[in-house]
Amino acid sequence: MSETRDVLRVAVLGAGGLGMAATRMLAGKREMTHVAIADSRGLAVDMDGLDADAVGEAQTATGTVGSTRASGQLSGDAIGDLLGHGADIDGVFVALPNLPNDFVPSVVERFAQRGYQGVMVDALKRTSAAELVVKLDPLLSHVGITYVVGAGATPGLLTAAAAVAAQSFAEISSVDINFGVGIANWEAYRATIREDIAHMPGYDVDAAQRMTDDDVAALLDETGGILELRNMEHADDIILELAGVVDRKRVTVGGIVDTRNPKKPVSTTVTVTGTTFEGRTSAHTFTLGDETSMAANVCGPALGYMKAAHWLHTRDVFGVLSSADIMPRFVR
Amino acid sequence: MSETRDVLRVAVLGAGGLGMAATRMLAGKREMTHVAIADSRGLAVDMDGLDADAVGEAQTATGTVGSTRASGQLSGDAIGDLLGHGADIDGVFVALPNLPNDFVPSVVERFAQRGYQGVMVDALKRTSAAELVVKLDPLLSHVGITYVVGAGATPGLLTAAAAVAAQSFAEISSVDINFGVGIANWEAYRATIREDIAHMPGYDVDAAQRMTDDDVAALLDETGGILELRNMEHADDIILELAGVVDRKRVTVGGIVDTRNPKKPVSTTVTVTGTTFEGRTSAHTFTLGDETSMAANVCGPALGYMKAAHWLHTRDVFGVLSSADIMPRFVR
Repeated sequence: MSETRDVLRVAVLGAGGLGMAATRMLAGKREMTHVAIADSRGLAVDMDGLDADAVGEAQTATGTVGSTRASGQLSGDAIGDLLGHGADIDGVFVALPNLPNDFVPSVVERFAQRGYQGVMVDALKRTSAAELVVKLDPLLSHVGITYVVGAGATPGLLTAAAAVAAQSFAEISSVDINFGVGIANWEAYRATIREDIAHMPGYDVDAAQRMTDDDVAALLDETGGILELRNMEHADDIILELAGVVDRKRVTVGGIVDTRNPKKPVSTTVTVTGTTFEGRTSAHTFTLGDETSMAANVCGPALGYMKAAHWLHTRDVFGVLSSADIMPRFVR
Repeated sequence: MSETRDVLRVAVLGAGGLGMAATRMLAGKREMTHVAIADSRGLAVDMDGLDADAVGEAQTATGTVGSTRASGQLSGDAIGDLLGHGADIDGVFVALPNLPNDFVPSVVERFAQRGYQGVMVDALKRTSAAELVVKLDPLLSHVGITYVVGAGATPGLLTAAAAVAAQSFAEISSVDINFGVGIANWEAYRATIREDIAHMPGYDVDAAQRMTDDDVAALLDETGGILELRNMEHADDIILELAGVVDRKRVTVGGIVDTRNPKKPVSTTVTVTGTTFEGRTSAHTFTLGDETSMAANVCGPALGYMKAAHWLHTRDVFGVLSSADIMPRFVR
């Protein structure tokens, strides 16, 4: 049985809600060491392993992980500085807010141009952003990066469940993803909530990016803290299409986000409907436990895909893969 | 994105219920051609593609696929004869009844010793049988076979769903698989039903193998056609343990088989219970649609894993993998 046994040195890009959750999650892993984190104003690097509490305190107190005592530094080009340590980093979790829509793809391209040779995973959500990453496949294959696009919750965990469920059917008629997210307070996930608002009628990525915190708070006051999202532009569609499972038009993603209550407003489900080789129509369903947080459902799979991608990287399999192409591996 | 684009030439070993279902399923696939099938008394081979109806009729009329007009031949060593075509076969679905318990592992070893260099997948169920296959890893790696053990429904589809679901949790406390199977008549799945009986209190593999059809019919008359199975020795446990997900003791498999009604007596579910990195306990569930047959849920994943394994085979990744190691790929 093939297994990766090394302790992987992991960097996290982005110190927002997801990045900080990844930092806390990595503190509990024996198979991974968290060696670097970067945000827009600084970075912290320690090849022996960062102190998650210190990173969190620095981020809370000063707004940048660069203020972490000993391991931190302020920087006008934190990603560039982090790339100086690229040779010592096995895997990168790109947890940056993707505003504007080509920001994460441009960061990935920069890693490739600097000759980074490791594993990268993202938690991108939009189809158009995922398409930009997929276009980098020849470059990443050439450089020697093994990349997993859409490795969060949706796309990610739920897309993988859909790809598994599809196996019983000869033809898939629809994949419906319906998520519920509850967070106690939107300010812990400023970028994620803005990306969600961009999916609402009358908004787009630019409009959401321009909103001040007061604008967001005012909108949430109007809706009672609830964001209801339908027919979202979500990369589950292109990922399942590229995996050959189903035409992207047959994939629908929607959900309800409660920004004032950590309890999920609805259970998150994936429903895969298809016809078997005998001609019977049926549906498999995958339902997430309500007690699992967005952070657990995004960052867990991201690290699981990183472990799987590292295994492939050691076998010289490079380029852009998706969360429907490879099985995420459990990180102890 | 990595994809396999060739039309794979596929052989099926075994012409019982599962083998014949695979034959019908392959008839609908554009990415695979069914070129060979073998049973205990003969084989049929046609590199341009077998006629599924003709194979089915021969099997029904004479009890062996070797009687298929034109492409068939009777044989005292059908597997040996099929191995003579090994160089032309990309993938093998081992759908043989595993009675005795080391039969399938011995067939796999024979393929390796004859220098077969392709992909093999099985639908083995018992932990002890899977362990015998896992021991062949060094031999299969050396020869150049990419093998997926436990690639049916359970282990297989349900194990994969459990491995995906585990990603939200820092620690898994239990994986519970509870299946329902309904078949119109047990005689279409003589070997499968005998393997199920071997799990019942007071029976073992040898005792089940020795039962005549009349013995089986008498037992089923006693139980009203129902087999109720608890704490089965099922390879989901070793597969999830080897994948690092959970200790095998925390995996339980049970189910109810109705041999007189194609309607499932209970819905098949997988429940993965764990604790998140924040310390919350929760459970994800995966539920199969009741209208999906055992044949669809076993043979679909088997071919999906074959496609995935072929992709790895083209990248020189050889040896024994499991259904929890790689993502099955959708076969069109």
